[in-house]
Amino acid sequence: MKLSVLATSLSLELFGEDKEIVRLNTLAEASADELSYIDHSRYLDTLKSTKAGAVFVSKDYLDALPRGCSALLTPTPHLSMAYASASFATPLASLEGEPARVDASAQIFPHVFLGKGAIIERDVTVMAGAYIGDGVRIGEGCIIHPNAVIYGGAQLGKRCHILPNAVIGADGFGYAHTPTGEHIKIYHTGSVVLEDDVEIGACTTIDRAVFGATCIKRGTKIDNLVQIAHNCELGERCIIVSQTGISGSTTLGRNVIMGGQSAVAGHLKIGDFTTVAARGGVTKSLEGGKTYGGFPLVLQKDWLKLQAKILKFFNTNKENK
Amino acid sequence: MKLSVLATSLSLELFGEDKEIVRLNTLAEASADELSYIDHSRYLDTLKSTKAGAVFVSKDYLDALPRGCSALLTPTPHLSMAYASASFATPLASLEGEPARVDASAQIFPHVFLGKGAIIERDVTVMAGAYIGDGVRIGEGCIIHPNAVIYGGAQLGKRCHILPNAVIGADGFGYAHTPTGEHIKIYHTGSVVLEDDVEIGACTTIDRAVFGATCIKRGTKIDNLVQIAHNCELGERCIIVSQTGISGSTTLGRNVIMGGQSAVAGHLKIGDFTTVAARGGVTKSLEGGKTYGGFPLVLQKDWLKLQAKILKFFNTNKENK
Amino acid sequence: MKLSVLATSLSLELFGEDKEIVRLNTLAEASADELSYIDHSRYLDTLKSTKAGAVFVSKDYLDALPRGCSALLTPTPHLSMAYASASFATPLASLEGEPARVDASAQIFPHVFLGKGAIIERDVTVMAGAYIGDGVRIGEGCIIHPNAVIYGGAQLGKRCHILPNAVIGADGFGYAHTPTGEHIKIYHTGSVVLEDDVEIGACTTIDRAVFGATCIKRGTKIDNLVQIAHNCELGERCIIVSQTGISGSTTLGRNVIMGGQSAVAGHLKIGDFTTVAARGGVTKSLEGGKTYGGFPLVLQKDWLKLQAKILKFFNTNKENK
Repeated sequence: MKLSVLATSLSLELFGEDKEIVRLNTLAEASADELSYIDHSRYLDTLKSTKAGAVFVSKDYLDALPRGCSALLTPTPHLSMAYASASFATPLASLEGEPARVDASAQIFPHVFLGKGAIIERDVTVMAGAYIGDGVRIGEGCIIHPNAVIYGGAQLGKRCHILPNAVIGADGFGYAHTPTGEHIKIYHTGSVVLEDDVEIGACTTIDRAVFGATCIKRGTKIDNLVQIAHNCELGERCIIVSQTGISGSTTLGRNVIMGGQSAVAGHLKIGDFTTVAARGGVTKSLEGGKTYGGFPLVLQKDWLKLQAKILKFFNTNKENK
Repeated sequence: MKLSVLATSLSLELFGEDKEIVRLNTLAEASADELSYIDHSRYLDTLKSTKAGAVFVSKDYLDALPRGCSALLTPTPHLSMAYASASFATPLASLEGEPARVDASAQIFPHVFLGKGAIIERDVTVMAGAYIGDGVRIGEGCIIHPNAVIYGGAQLGKRCHILPNAVIGADGFGYAHTPTGEHIKIYHTGSVVLEDDVEIGACTTIDRAVFGATCIKRGTKIDNLVQIAHNCELGERCIIVSQTGISGSTTLGRNVIMGGQSAVAGHLKIGDFTTVAARGGVTKSLEGGKTYGGFPLVLQKDWLKLQAKILKFFNTNKENK
Repeated sequence: MKLSVLATSLSLELFGEDKEIVRLNTLAEASADELSYIDHSRYLDTLKSTKAGAVFVSKDYLDALPRGCSALLTPTPHLSMAYASASFATPLASLEGEPARVDASAQIFPHVFLGKGAIIERDVTVMAGAYIGDGVRIGEGCIIHPNAVIYGGAQLGKRCHILPNAVIGADGFGYAHTPTGEHIKIYHTGSVVLEDDVEIGACTTIDRAVFGATCIKRGTKIDNLVQIAHNCELGERCIIVSQTGISGSTTLGRNVIMGGQSAVAGHLKIGDFTTVAARGGVTKSLEGGKTYGGFPLVLQKDWLKLQAKILKFFNTNKENK
């Protein structure tokens, strides 16, 4: 899409050269045919060195744009990006294009939907009612269980098991907000990457990235009813127990264990070999190698002691209250 | 169904005129061809002014019935209503009747089920494996993602997105209990209404109302794995983050934000512009305009202070314990 | 499978007679054509009296094997069992065999998958997109709602309702761990049994047993988005409210009530008529007949008092801190 066309449709002023834009991306990752945005001064240095073809920018930062980078001037760059995202949204499913390529050894059950350009490799099983979107690659030996949904662009390594009714790669929960409190959907144009030997539980949801990819590394096992939000990265061999939620853009190291009904807030880094006990709620980044619990989170052994002390103290003082 | 037939099938005595009953409803909402029940003295005034054609009533309240209102005499009106609900249950899906009416601009994927009398408006996309029940209306520009289930009678406004494997309008979790502890299913005959620009996350469940409608108002966005129980009403432009649960008959005002894994108990009113932090558990109605957290719920800033004090106090006193 | 073949494929030494093994099982339940394992000294007595045809055993326990019981010698019996489980895994779905037997009164919607040897009894309704695995029995009057998934071998009693997108009998979340931290999948060869009048909510997951059966007894009602892990047993007439999680091998008595977002850890026994309030987290077995709440769990009335005391104490002491 021509930058000038987008400018007109959003009623924004275009500074610099008109050019063809093919997608949205972050300042750090964008290339010459991509459009980005800056909505906070902490990204100013990134703006100065961005390779983006164009940036949504408020007039304060207009001078910081690198040479050759065009600008769409807006008082609300994040909101403008959200409006623009609809124009760059991944199509739900193409009616045209090359049909899915299915290896002769693969077993495809009835009532399966295979999107255009999907690749189903050796010894894959796709069970009844599963949905495989456009351009999805399902690696050797994977099992896609009944009614699981794998969205366009997702890439699965070898021997992954996607249990029934799991959803891989639906749009993440991201909105920009208007001054009057309306929520404007950010169409997520990223994808999901599952490496080899990943298992995803029944009714678990792994959201696609805004840009780039939500990534689950080799050998990680995820139980039922877990939420993994957009742009998370889970390291190798993690264990995520049922009903846990990992918020957006959080990174887990390798061999992290999350107990049942635990949670991690967004934009955190959880170090290798961290264990979070059941119900633990993580709101700060963690170094790794230790076992935590409680909400607010402390070392699990301290949480156990603290709870015992609380019970003892208030029981002891029962008469005085 | 004739009242006399129902009386016979439930072995109850009929007082007053026999009449044709078409459905169940609350005392306040019922009209002349509807049957209601009273199981608590706090509804006595409502009983006295009900327009219901008939009421399940214990002999204590028989005299309070308005003129022309028939009675089915029962020691357990709620339980009798539950037994009766099976006779008035919405059919799962009709085999006969007018086929779905699909606008020429709509895109219907393979393996979709369209119930009788459903209406699919302009520019709607219904993706593979979705289930659209009898009489459902899908407004202009909606996207129903793969394997989502929308039950009979649900009404969707314009531009709603129903993400994969979401369930709109399944029976709520409501039972009457026999003296021996058996749970008798209350068939939910109400429906679900989603206004314009509502987004429902993957594997999120929105239950249909017992009577009337569960309602999600314009511009509200709901994340994955959320539970919205029967008869809830969510105001405009709410944000409900993943794994939150809203119990039955609770009302949220406009622009309410519920953080991840938060919850609200049943029959509460949450005021406009309330924010509940992640994990907050609401057990009382809230005025609105403030940010709460914790369980039991307090102001979020007080919860943060309280947790800091608890940690400090019990650490300081460590030597003494 | 011949024991000697298995020994070769796992590079383990076989002691005693070679024999045909048909499946894996626990020491206590195994019979002459089944293979078991021992990984802890507390099972030594069970080993001594096992009727298993063979056992994965470390050399410490080799002498304790009963006469006629063969041994596969391994330093890591649980891990060896996990590797072996792939060979005994229930096939996902047979291409051959007797087709499903559907009673003439049953109503089967379009896009339904019926596995080989499944039995659909009188007055059953199987709605669109549902998956019924091999050998599943669906009792009289059951309703299987759209896109629900019922895995091979599950047995449903009469009048069960399986709500949309529920998953009955997917593999449980069980792994053995290698010394380098890899997780080796334990293929679950057990099944799920639902007795009469059980209701399973939308997007609720009931995992199949490792061996034996996960069992939900007569009249128990389970709400949406609940997780019931492998090998659980729920007694008659329990009520499990939305977003609750029950961990593996836990037993609930009859008429147990679990409030919303509550949880029970694994391998516990919860007595008859126990109530756990919303958000209650159970980490010890409970006698029954009482109402509990909080995490750590106490009597609900004590939890309410404790929370009030905590708030009062730290507010009173506000000036001093």
